[in-house]
Amino acid sequence: MTGGEVVVETLGSKVLKGNPLGDPTRREIAVYLPPKYDPNKRYPAAYAIVGYTGTGKSLLSVDPLGEDIKSKLDRLIRTGKMGPMIVPLPDCFTRVGGNQYINSSATGRYDDYLRKEVIPFVESRYRVGRRGIWGKSSGGYGSIVQGMLHPDTWQALADHSGDSCFEFCYIPDFPKALAAFREHGGPKGWLNWYWRQPNRRREEFFQPLNTLGMAAHYSPNPRSPHLGIDFPFDLETGEWRPEVWARWRAWDPVNMVERRWRALRRMRLVYIDCGTKDQFNLIWGARTLHAKLEGLRVRHVYEEFEDTHSNITYRYDASLPLMWRALAR
Amino acid sequence: MTGGEVVVETLGSKVLKGNPLGDPTRREIAVYLPPKYDPNKRYPAAYAIVGYTGTGKSLLSVDPLGEDIKSKLDRLIRTGKMGPMIVPLPDCFTRVGGNQYINSSATGRYDDYLRKEVIPFVESRYRVGRRGIWGKSSGGYGSIVQGMLHPDTWQALADHSGDSCFEFCYIPDFPKALAAFREHGGPKGWLNWYWRQPNRRREEFFQPLNTLGMAAHYSPNPRSPHLGIDFPFDLETGEWRPEVWARWRAWDPVNMVERRWRALRRMRLVYIDCGTKDQFNLIWGARTLHAKLEGLRVRHVYEEFEDTHSNITYRYDASLPLMWRALAR
Amino acid sequence: MTGGEVVVETLGSKVLKGNPLGDPTRREIAVYLPPKYDPNKRYPAAYAIVGYTGTGKSLLSVDPLGEDIKSKLDRLIRTGKMGPMIVPLPDCFTRVGGNQYINSSATGRYDDYLRKEVIPFVESRYRVGRRGIWGKSSGGYGSIVQGMLHPDTWQALADHSGDSCFEFCYIPDFPKALAAFREHGGPKGWLNWYWRQPNRRREEFFQPLNTLGMAAHYSPNPRSPHLGIDFPFDLETGEWRPEVWARWRAWDPVNMVERRWRALRRMRLVYIDCGTKDQFNLIWGARTLHAKLEGLRVRHVYEEFEDTHSNITYRYDASLPLMWRALAR
Amino acid sequence: MTGGEVVVETLGSKVLKGNPLGDPTRREIAVYLPPKYDPNKRYPAAYAIVGYTGTGKSLLSVDPLGEDIKSKLDRLIRTGKMGPMIVPLPDCFTRVGGNQYINSSATGRYDDYLRKEVIPFVESRYRVGRRGIWGKSSGGYGSIVQGMLHPDTWQALADHSGDSCFEFCYIPDFPKALAAFREHGGPKGWLNWYWRQPNRRREEFFQPLNTLGMAAHYSPNPRSPHLGIDFPFDLETGEWRPEVWARWRAWDPVNMVERRWRALRRMRLVYIDCGTKDQFNLIWGARTLHAKLEGLRVRHVYEEFEDTHSNITYRYDASLPLMWRALAR
Repeated sequence: MTGGEVVVETLGSKVLKGNPLGDPTRREIAVYLPPKYDPNKRYPAAYAIVGYTGTGKSLLSVDPLGEDIKSKLDRLIRTGKMGPMIVPLPDCFTRVGGNQYINSSATGRYDDYLRKEVIPFVESRYRVGRRGIWGKSSGGYGSIVQGMLHPDTWQALADHSGDSCFEFCYIPDFPKALAAFREHGGPKGWLNWYWRQPNRRREEFFQPLNTLGMAAHYSPNPRSPHLGIDFPFDLETGEWRPEVWARWRAWDPVNMVERRWRALRRMRLVYIDCGTKDQFNLIWGARTLHAKLEGLRVRHVYEEFEDTHSNITYRYDASLPLMWRALAR
Repeated sequence: MTGGEVVVETLGSKVLKGNPLGDPTRREIAVYLPPKYDPNKRYPAAYAIVGYTGTGKSLLSVDPLGEDIKSKLDRLIRTGKMGPMIVPLPDCFTRVGGNQYINSSATGRYDDYLRKEVIPFVESRYRVGRRGIWGKSSGGYGSIVQGMLHPDTWQALADHSGDSCFEFCYIPDFPKALAAFREHGGPKGWLNWYWRQPNRRREEFFQPLNTLGMAAHYSPNPRSPHLGIDFPFDLETGEWRPEVWARWRAWDPVNMVERRWRALRRMRLVYIDCGTKDQFNLIWGARTLHAKLEGLRVRHVYEEFEDTHSNITYRYDASLPLMWRALAR
Repeated sequence: MTGGEVVVETLGSKVLKGNPLGDPTRREIAVYLPPKYDPNKRYPAAYAIVGYTGTGKSLLSVDPLGEDIKSKLDRLIRTGKMGPMIVPLPDCFTRVGGNQYINSSATGRYDDYLRKEVIPFVESRYRVGRRGIWGKSSGGYGSIVQGMLHPDTWQALADHSGDSCFEFCYIPDFPKALAAFREHGGPKGWLNWYWRQPNRRREEFFQPLNTLGMAAHYSPNPRSPHLGIDFPFDLETGEWRPEVWARWRAWDPVNMVERRWRALRRMRLVYIDCGTKDQFNLIWGARTLHAKLEGLRVRHVYEEFEDTHSNITYRYDASLPLMWRALAR
Repeated sequence: MTGGEVVVETLGSKVLKGNPLGDPTRREIAVYLPPKYDPNKRYPAAYAIVGYTGTGKSLLSVDPLGEDIKSKLDRLIRTGKMGPMIVPLPDCFTRVGGNQYINSSATGRYDDYLRKEVIPFVESRYRVGRRGIWGKSSGGYGSIVQGMLHPDTWQALADHSGDSCFEFCYIPDFPKALAAFREHGGPKGWLNWYWRQPNRRREEFFQPLNTLGMAAHYSPNPRSPHLGIDFPFDLETGEWRPEVWARWRAWDPVNMVERRWRALRRMRLVYIDCGTKDQFNLIWGARTLHAKLEGLRVRHVYEEFEDTHSNITYRYDASLPLMWRALAR
């Protein structure tokens, strides 16, 4: 069965040089090229950004009970659900477990990296027309935030089960994160210990890793002794710190949209979906976002589906053809 | 084995007349009298207030793997761990599943009921010296709040695993509560439906019941169509309502203590403990409270123990003798 | 509201003298007498036997979200759902956590105790007509086993969510039991350690306690160094011991019924129900039992209901009136 | 960083022609070739067989928190932990969700496929010296069973957390499998329905899929209307069918070893490990196997580690170097 091709290239970053976590500046980027790719033609490009604890290439994982991204794109194109499209899969993984795709003094300037280095790199090699950005979870978050911040860069976005309504998706993890930090002498001690573990996907690691990562993105503070990060709770007693939480809230899409809706109006596609049983409670953020976009008269596609946050790559069947249409027409 | 006696009496309340939930105004009150109770002597009284979904008589439940309150009191007195004490067990149960032992336009004036009716009723029948108040969970919350609000009434308090640090103990329940309310046409619809269920202790009922109950106590609003209650989230979309949450926070012991610490200084005993594995994350509230009391130089006993929130009546062995000593000396 | 009365009496046992677990031979028995009990009249008696980790008096526990047994009986009689009935609540608790209501060299002769001491004791004090036996869980198990073994003693039985299909209700607990025993130097070491714990209702204790208790009932062996009990697995490696398991199977109601169906035919009521979501998988035992009774033409009432194993006392509303009718007519 | 290479080839099977599940006969096989692979040299080959719900290529999945198999092999060779080795990754996935690597009339002759087609195919293309077989979970099971059945084919085996002590690893899943089958008109109806679901990795699908798959391997029966499979329980009532279970037991490594230990004595490496917290309770099978091998004086390496069944690819760091040494020396 002839299909497209995945090319893996390597990109050296200047933006990430000297990043505070010591993460690599040379990064692989996998690029899906559609079947019969013709270097003389121009194609729409749908940049994929992935969820926390993943990297671009994670989307390529083979699953005999499911469908990897290459098989999916091949099939959607072969069956006429969409036309040919380039799909770059950049690597934005960091030592705090992933990326929210924004600039932060505690992680690095990944927003800049994405727009000022990944895009030029890809588009110097492949002829790209309009650009979209899409992803799930942190990748969904990054997509809608990129759309709100950079309407000149992106013409379409798809936010699948993206982080939002932070009270419901993050706060429930805090007590377990607090306990883990405390046990290991603080977030820095925990992170060092964490990276020495042979199995870093134990369930009980998720809450401290995710909490640490989110704080690194939303409330960095170069003067903090805790990896340059402020936390919305006292690390010893757990006392709530409303002033830090307010900084997180400023990055919540349901709040950002009130300032940034004009950017979204400029998109050719704003696609949002979420599972009604999302175990991170993201359905409430999706509903709030949907209601606000309605109120602000921002045209968008909104879907709910009966599933959780896990193993829902089949949802890309709904968004990718719409994205292709939005970018190609 | 001769022990004390539990007398069950009935008390008709004026304070609760016309309460908004239609809860009974005639209530039973069980009163533990120590062995060899002598009506001519004066005894300290340790008023027990119970956790959510309980009533005073719940403490009398027999458990062959544990110890009911009567057996415990008998044993503590018999073995000399403490002297004779009267322990009244009032009933403050309501249609929203329990009580936080404060006045609320949405539930009734239970703070008044406790102080202006229960105490006089008990003390008209039994000769009482000093008074303490104690309890677990919502009863622990009620105890420390009663102490902070009414230092003229109480001379000692014991707060076992009491509600506090509301961000951690309540917010994680909200998503499930929201989903339940939404499925049943709002909190009022849910509550009516709930009381028609034959089994009202299904696990999935806890979050909506508790959330409804806490909102009824912390953010009542006579003008709200939802049982006269405001909720810290939009009932349709889940959008966070910071202004309602601020009202909850005003009732959080870790915040109240900053205004009310002088009252606690007047107590002969302030006892606080919590399990390090408390599944409602109350350990963080306990730690915060402890740190603040230290900072404010309020003398108190603070203990952590390795256990969860469940089946921890053995902790009363630590507090009751201290309470007796505080009240009797 | 006038209702019946619960009288608590004390019974000294000869049968239990020298029982291997050192359990008390003097036991309390609570007896529910219906409203307007007339000592000159004869009443049907429905003996209640309780589930594992309970004792007769556990049924009296007050629950403001539910209904204790006294309130239930009062209500069923008051509303005419059934006529007046005596309900004895004997205590058969043991050091291994409860009772299956059969004789065993490892626990004591509780079958004999029930029939040769409890019944005569009750019926020397109260005038009893026909007798029924009922209970939930281990009490359900005990009820149907009593019915199969002693059709001259009992004229009716109700088996609510009773142990059966042992492969599904017991084997899943074995791995955790094994691990606990191994950690504490075997079942005996574990049991001693267990009774020193202040909180004996921690979730993780259930599997070892229940497994130990069931083995004590189904595969006692006076020559075993492990509390006089054989286990269906090797205590060191977990290796399966089919010959011991065969002894358990002989006590499984779904197997016993093939030998003992004639006894059940003599009952005036055989009532069986189970929740479709029973977390101990008892629904499959109930379905098997039902199918076999159908095949053997044993008249019985069979009901399934949508609930778990927990907090289902409301099911007694279905069985007790039927039992009264069976015993009284 | 120069490393080895993964070549993906396609193999057409005769053995699998007409297989009852309609699974493909043309299969991809990925083959890891070590760095500086020299087609004129002979290398040991360690055939990898994967766990249930996986395929050979699943081992190639990239994980930024862990290590894919190619990176691991490259690293182990680069750092001198082992010498160069060929690692073929065949695909044995089936419609019942995976493979136990034995012949079955209900799935196909995968034992034959592996030995009579995969090996010759690989070894016609690459020069192979001695052969080992290794894997985790079902792959661990397949490895030790292959070793016991075919000592002429394999010279070494590594069984990581392999299925064994079937009472503990399979029976606990049966009740949920039963419920799912019943809801969908039997195993056949369930399987058809299952494959129509867009998300086939929902947690609740595991028990029916695994139970169906295991029954297909251990108790096939061409005359059964249920996909040619017998089940160890009645599909309607759950009644236990000991005669079918006995057929499963015959395939349990802890029982097979008593007949097949001579084959294991011929291995140059028998490696067995398991996590002490394995959630499928496989530690007990591992301990039993270890004890029996000791008793039978079969030389083997046995390790326990503190982890569960999930994300334990780091364990291959312990086995692969031993396997290389066993095959290469």
